[in-house]
Amino acid sequence: MTISTNTFETHLREIAVETERLLSSLLEGEALAGEIARPRHLLAAMRHAVLNGGKRLRPFLVTSSAALFGGDGEAALRVGAALECLHCYSLVHDDLPAMDNDDMRRGQPTVHIAYDEATAILAGDSLLTYAFDIIVAPETALPDHAKTELVLALARAAGLGGMAGGQALDLAAENHRPDEAGIVTLQAMKTGALLRFACEAGAILSGASDTDRRQIRRFGEVTGRAFQIADDLLDLTADAATMGKATGKDAARGKATLASLKGQAWAEAELERLVSEAEALLAPYGARAAMLIEAARFVANRKS
Amino acid sequence: MTISTNTFETHLREIAVETERLLSSLLEGEALAGEIARPRHLLAAMRHAVLNGGKRLRPFLVTSSAALFGGDGEAALRVGAALECLHCYSLVHDDLPAMDNDDMRRGQPTVHIAYDEATAILAGDSLLTYAFDIIVAPETALPDHAKTELVLALARAAGLGGMAGGQALDLAAENHRPDEAGIVTLQAMKTGALLRFACEAGAILSGASDTDRRQIRRFGEVTGRAFQIADDLLDLTADAATMGKATGKDAARGKATLASLKGQAWAEAELERLVSEAEALLAPYGARAAMLIEAARFVANRKS
Repeated sequence: MTISTNTFETHLREIAVETERLLSSLLEGEALAGEIARPRHLLAAMRHAVLNGGKRLRPFLVTSSAALFGGDGEAALRVGAALECLHCYSLVHDDLPAMDNDDMRRGQPTVHIAYDEATAILAGDSLLTYAFDIIVAPETALPDHAKTELVLALARAAGLGGMAGGQALDLAAENHRPDEAGIVTLQAMKTGALLRFACEAGAILSGASDTDRRQIRRFGEVTGRAFQIADDLLDLTADAATMGKATGKDAARGKATLASLKGQAWAEAELERLVSEAEALLAPYGARAAMLIEAARFVANRKS
Repeated sequence: MTISTNTFETHLREIAVETERLLSSLLEGEALAGEIARPRHLLAAMRHAVLNGGKRLRPFLVTSSAALFGGDGEAALRVGAALECLHCYSLVHDDLPAMDNDDMRRGQPTVHIAYDEATAILAGDSLLTYAFDIIVAPETALPDHAKTELVLALARAAGLGGMAGGQALDLAAENHRPDEAGIVTLQAMKTGALLRFACEAGAILSGASDTDRRQIRRFGEVTGRAFQIADDLLDLTADAATMGKATGKDAARGKATLASLKGQAWAEAELERLVSEAEALLAPYGARAAMLIEAARFVANRKS
């Protein structure tokens, strides 16, 4: 079930390139059909938000899950691009002064710095809206029932009970520190829900069985937990290196994480445990699941 | 083809009551299915944004259009409620300090005043997301192809090429005054697109013919133009009464409107012309279209 790290990283980069190309074409004026003019300024802000050279981990999970279940590769790429638009909307809004107030992202000014706050709000709104457009557009070659299932699953992963709700809990956590269970819930919503959707989306668009969908959802949940703990660990250790003490950006903002509560050793052991759990969940699929398992390992071990 | 104003206003109020009841139930914690906790604070902000005693004109257009084409009344109410969530999201974001910076709406503090700015951003995001959830949810008894068509039409009415794009053009208009054609385009996007969608949605969910869809779309466009000119006129005359001179809030913000450019007499004549056009468009449907025609009259003549 193992493939080489090289094979995995090559494939991750290939999907990133294809996703970037598709996103760029989806965000050209011409591609946005409609009989009324489109504001160039807003479109430019959306491109700034999306075409940022990201790793495109979520699209990779969609396409790898679709490959496992025999789904159409082109449709998977489009669903991945839709998900990336939605992910990028959340970054634009999270970066706003009223939220996390971040000026830089990936070495570039954030959208409200490069443009202005009103444009950043509208660019986020438009990207969120466009994600649903891309999924149901005629160019996405999927049956209508798959499209409606994808829209429902994405709306639930992104809305009040998912990512947006998790961000609200995260902001509240600066004043009322949540306990361990509270942190787990918050993180499952804020970052876990979209990663789980990415995995499940591949199964939905492939018409996979309910059993397969449940299994890949659980894989997505486990991968999401690993993603978050790796993130917490990076925050803890990266800042420890630069600041010379064991406090990170999260701690500075008064945000407790599992890694900060339970320590670096616990976090490292938990990451190993989660990777094993991810492997066990996909064991029934044998070698065909190798790419997804590498993705879980990559998420757990990433250094940026 | 005429019905009494009383009949129309009674029906408008009935639909508003039913819509309000449905929205309240859709925005209860219990109704938002999902295995993870929902943040009460955010849900309360969403309720504040939506349950505000509005006229529910857009849901009324959806249900009246569905009635004309023989669509299911319950499904039409749900689509109307989804559209109202989306309309209310746009009001919450438009009211933000970075946008129109309004503290009050319908005699109540706006969401960022009653809660805070971050919560208002997230409440808007969540309402936008929830609109798509409601349309595709299993409880909305429509075939999958109608659901995907509704999602696509709504996403295009709301996104870069529609409402959000129109708001971007409107903000830009404060610095670069658009000419008459520019104002028409801006308003068709900012307020017209959702009103057109409301009319078209009734046809889509009823499985109406392409010819019927085109006709009701045009009716929606004409009604949208009447809505905007009536709005401009109210801004012009309401402020003229209170301020003792012929300048309104739009003028104070440096925003040109058709009514301010061409004068009150032109605007009043244009409203009459648009109502006649709306009547002519629905003449082929005879008495069954009476409620929609009254809606166009109401929009053109409204005093608030």
